[in-house]
Amino acid sequence: MSKPGRATGTATERVRAALAAVKSVDRPEIWIMLRSEDELLVEAAGIDAALAGGSHLPLAGFLLAVKNNVDVAGIPTTAACPGFAYVPKQDAAAVARLRSAGAIVLGVTNLDQFATGLVGTRSPYGAVRDSRRPERISGGSSSGSAVAVALGLADIAIGTDTAGSGRVPAGLQGIVGIKATLGAVSTSGVVPACRSWDAVTVFARELTTAELAMGVMAGDARPWPANVRFGAPARPRVAYPAVLPELPPAWAEAFGRQVARLQAAGVQTTPIEFDVFLQAARLLYDGGLVAERYAAVGDFIKNSGSEANLDPTVAGIIRAAGDVPAHRYVADVARLEKLREEAMAGLAGFDALLVPTAPFHPTLAEVATDPVTVNSRMGTYTNFCNLFDLCAVAVPAEEVEGNQFGVTVVGRAFDDAVVADIARRIETTPAPPELFASGATAPAEAGTPWPLQAGAFAVPLVVVGAHRQGQPLAPELENLGAYWDGPVRTAARYRMVALSTEPPKPGVYRSENGAELVAERWLLSEAAMGRFLAALPEPMLLGSTLLDDGSTAVGFACDAVAASTGTDITRFGDWLAAISDSFAEPVPGSRSDPDHRRQGAPKSLRESLLTGFTRGL
Amino acid sequence: MSKPGRATGTATERVRAALAAVKSVDRPEIWIMLRSEDELLVEAAGIDAALAGGSHLPLAGFLLAVKNNVDVAGIPTTAACPGFAYVPKQDAAAVARLRSAGAIVLGVTNLDQFATGLVGTRSPYGAVRDSRRPERISGGSSSGSAVAVALGLADIAIGTDTAGSGRVPAGLQGIVGIKATLGAVSTSGVVPACRSWDAVTVFARELTTAELAMGVMAGDARPWPANVRFGAPARPRVAYPAVLPELPPAWAEAFGRQVARLQAAGVQTTPIEFDVFLQAARLLYDGGLVAERYAAVGDFIKNSGSEANLDPTVAGIIRAAGDVPAHRYVADVARLEKLREEAMAGLAGFDALLVPTAPFHPTLAEVATDPVTVNSRMGTYTNFCNLFDLCAVAVPAEEVEGNQFGVTVVGRAFDDAVVADIARRIETTPAPPELFASGATAPAEAGTPWPLQAGAFAVPLVVVGAHRQGQPLAPELENLGAYWDGPVRTAARYRMVALSTEPPKPGVYRSENGAELVAERWLLSEAAMGRFLAALPEPMLLGSTLLDDGSTAVGFACDAVAASTGTDITRFGDWLAAISDSFAEPVPGSRSDPDHRRQGAPKSLRESLLTGFTRGL
Repeated sequence: MSKPGRATGTATERVRAALAAVKSVDRPEIWIMLRSEDELLVEAAGIDAALAGGSHLPLAGFLLAVKNNVDVAGIPTTAACPGFAYVPKQDAAAVARLRSAGAIVLGVTNLDQFATGLVGTRSPYGAVRDSRRPERISGGSSSGSAVAVALGLADIAIGTDTAGSGRVPAGLQGIVGIKATLGAVSTSGVVPACRSWDAVTVFARELTTAELAMGVMAGDARPWPANVRFGAPARPRVAYPAVLPELPPAWAEAFGRQVARLQAAGVQTTPIEFDVFLQAARLLYDGGLVAERYAAVGDFIKNSGSEANLDPTVAGIIRAAGDVPAHRYVADVARLEKLREEAMAGLAGFDALLVPTAPFHPTLAEVATDPVTVNSRMGTYTNFCNLFDLCAVAVPAEEVEGNQFGVTVVGRAFDDAVVADIARRIETTPAPPELFASGATAPAEAGTPWPLQAGAFAVPLVVVGAHRQGQPLAPELENLGAYWDGPVRTAARYRMVALSTEPPKPGVYRSENGAELVAERWLLSEAAMGRFLAALPEPMLLGSTLLDDGSTAVGFACDAVAASTGTDITRFGDWLAAISDSFAEPVPGSRSDPDHRRQGAPKSLRESLLTGFTRGL
Repeated sequence: MSKPGRATGTATERVRAALAAVKSVDRPEIWIMLRSEDELLVEAAGIDAALAGGSHLPLAGFLLAVKNNVDVAGIPTTAACPGFAYVPKQDAAAVARLRSAGAIVLGVTNLDQFATGLVGTRSPYGAVRDSRRPERISGGSSSGSAVAVALGLADIAIGTDTAGSGRVPAGLQGIVGIKATLGAVSTSGVVPACRSWDAVTVFARELTTAELAMGVMAGDARPWPANVRFGAPARPRVAYPAVLPELPPAWAEAFGRQVARLQAAGVQTTPIEFDVFLQAARLLYDGGLVAERYAAVGDFIKNSGSEANLDPTVAGIIRAAGDVPAHRYVADVARLEKLREEAMAGLAGFDALLVPTAPFHPTLAEVATDPVTVNSRMGTYTNFCNLFDLCAVAVPAEEVEGNQFGVTVVGRAFDDAVVADIARRIETTPAPPELFASGATAPAEAGTPWPLQAGAFAVPLVVVGAHRQGQPLAPELENLGAYWDGPVRTAARYRMVALSTEPPKPGVYRSENGAELVAERWLLSEAAMGRFLAALPEPMLLGSTLLDDGSTAVGFACDAVAASTGTDITRFGDWLAAISDSFAEPVPGSRSDPDHRRQGAPKSLRESLLTGFTRGL
């Protein structure tokens, strides 16, 4: 496998390798339909030509598998029910976005019929088997998509997720699954399961690739709030269930190791009462909420005979949902809101919740023996998520007794970048699958939190001193959810003085005799920028700063008193160089100032900082 | 009637006057229960004593009527159904908030049973009659509350509103009704009608009083977004229906006059297609959404006999709602969301929508003849509002053929301050009712938009120059939804120079030889502050500014180059004085600057501004 940040080969080469791999694995149940080699090669050639012509295609040649309840123009959308099939004229919104970024749809994948299930066995196209041990289930309902990615046949895959269908198979297959905040990805062109809680998800082998794809897929459907966080705080606080129902002891131990791993990565972890989350899951299975499934496809099922190839378990569930009275559904939604309030109160003060993804990995035989109960148990750690309007990132963690063990970081709506940040601390690169075909992984810039790529609005802030990464005030920005966007340089028009603030800071002011300054850029939400400004202490100011590339950003200045009394350190060009130069003499030509003279300058810079000659201005 | 801004008399005097007025009007159907004189006088004496002891009670002695589907501790909550009555131990959240601000509950008021109706006639406690012409209806369902305020028996009244119950009776009774964004006021302690769309509302005779009360009532239940707007832009854009169904010609003409009145008040008005709003209303009456009423009280009605005193129309509607299947409800909610998207697209680019409040004013006889149809028609301009998650302020407009004609300003969720701002341009003080009793009206500070009083977070911004009210850049702040909070003065530590920016601006910088400066304070949301900073041009800066009262706020500074090259105008102490002093000489002691000298200073300030000697810094 190539290292992340590099895509291997041309689109044409990747298509050929993927088709060869598809043949070689002999897993026909993954696909409901594969596109023809001819069609794929024509499309790949087009992408290679566009790239050669200078087009920007962030997903150029990435092979994409699409769950077959999501429209791909010209390919029947079956939702794993042949009798339900229709041929869409347009791609679903999410598919269209990925394709316009250069992704190539390899084919459409098998699923639990009508996305009703978490097992991957409920399909007339065959049960989808675990990528490594064919006697076990894939997990579902996005079964074919997950296994296609796990086997390296596709680089990314679209799933859907109402109760865990985009996470349970990720967990069991040892890959990454992102279930974004509801509405972040348009569900236009998707067969509804429960329309209130349906999400379009993405699978990939690495988080960076999944984030890149999610950044392309998301947008438009639900606007980002003005106070969206673009990252986790420096020391995130993560809750986890105090007890772990359904988990066998070896898996519970593995979960404990992941908690410890987060602690080692600087995360504060705290056990919490988990029962309210489980109550929401029970509402999903035992309550009136299932009526949404009947609203989606109930009339079709009611009017279908054996020719439709209905899965008996799925059809039974949905038929029964037709008898739910509306007042019971309304009462259950009210109950759900109460539970949500209670759950959110339990999460107050935490940045995220860590849970196992799937609780165990059953065999096909175990599921066949008791298809409904095993399925319900599979959703223990996923069911509550969409019902409570949370976002989630499922990542592989380790192998336990031959099983892939995965965990999921769950966060509040719109905390997508926060949960991804925390998941990044857990992620381990899974062992390269032997049959890995295309080698396409996300380019380096995929580290950018995907909400930014998806158009969440951010204000750039340029910092030269104590707010630089690793410096004492950087946590102020991290705690506001700011994203560190890398080093920059100012234009050659600023002077810098040392202020004896606590902690020490540089003061910057515009001057006709200015120089370039080493700086860093962060991205903040509008609300975070407003909050930061509201708390900014004298003598610091914020305003437009010109960078050496001609762009502008919000940047720091100091007020006139501080500028005239601080020790000039412009010659260093870099605050970090200035403070490491402990015996530096003040640069000739620094501003003269009566107070400064009174206290006996010139002193060494370090001495000046320590004695605080500008304190109390 | 006393003028707004003054409350008349002690709480004890007001209680006595109100009780006398209640007797004198002889409208027993308004009240389901009045509190005893003894109890009221004890409570009033307590408030008078608290005020004398220095307590801050913004609603001290305001007489409050409470719709009897909202809990008042110790008084039966009947929802106008004697058999349903229970005696709550606690006040509803909204009642508790008003009481803790000094309001006195005079009694609980009649309503359309279970808040199911817009007419005010559906109650075993009697039909509530129009405040002026007893052969006409009051409007409902908050019938008693609206008439109590219209007759001056109460200063403020609590209503509830699901389909217009807090606005239709305001319109017909010539008073103000605020239906805030759903969730702004807690519905805790309120008998649900349709819990997804129920709002607790307030009535008063003037908008300032209603806003003051709403500021006290609101809070906690749904957090304000970071980008909440605290006011309308300088030149708001308001849509209105291109056609006006159900309106008789004289009312349509009156509506046209209100549109013209807004235009005269600086509002841009535009007719829009209204059909999508009407479709939502049809969904309410002909669809599955009514199942929410069964979820609320259906089991009670099903199990009740004649002893419960059910209103036959109300009981018929709610019983039928028990037969709605959940999938139909779910489908209708989905349809509603589509309609909402379409409606919001139609409102894109507008700050608000102006509609008539009620379309006509029927007699009791007309309603008795066809209780369901007349009721449906009454909701033409109110039904869509809660379904589309909009906020609304109903204000009286004029008298038309003896009827009160009112209009409602409708806005997006959380634009409560925006719609109130626009409604203020329409509001006319209604003729003082002859029987006006207590004379309590809002104090002057009630002009503050109520979301600020309710705890929406705001950042203060101090401006000294072009962003002052009426100055060229004030619209920048108004368009960000900022609220003008009045004049302030800085501490005596700033100097001010004239910059030849376009438009001319002062540049401020901190100095040990500084002076006080005349300034104004605005309040911005955090997101608005971040957006304002992101767009701020060089040489302007923002940072902490000290005011003469020792408080700080975000304030302007100019950068070092501008400070050293601008003409010092500190001696004026006020930018407006400086720019009106057209032949002012630069103040002695202003900073010397080579560029300045090169261009031949001293000049007159006006000349300097016109020739732009600091341009191009």
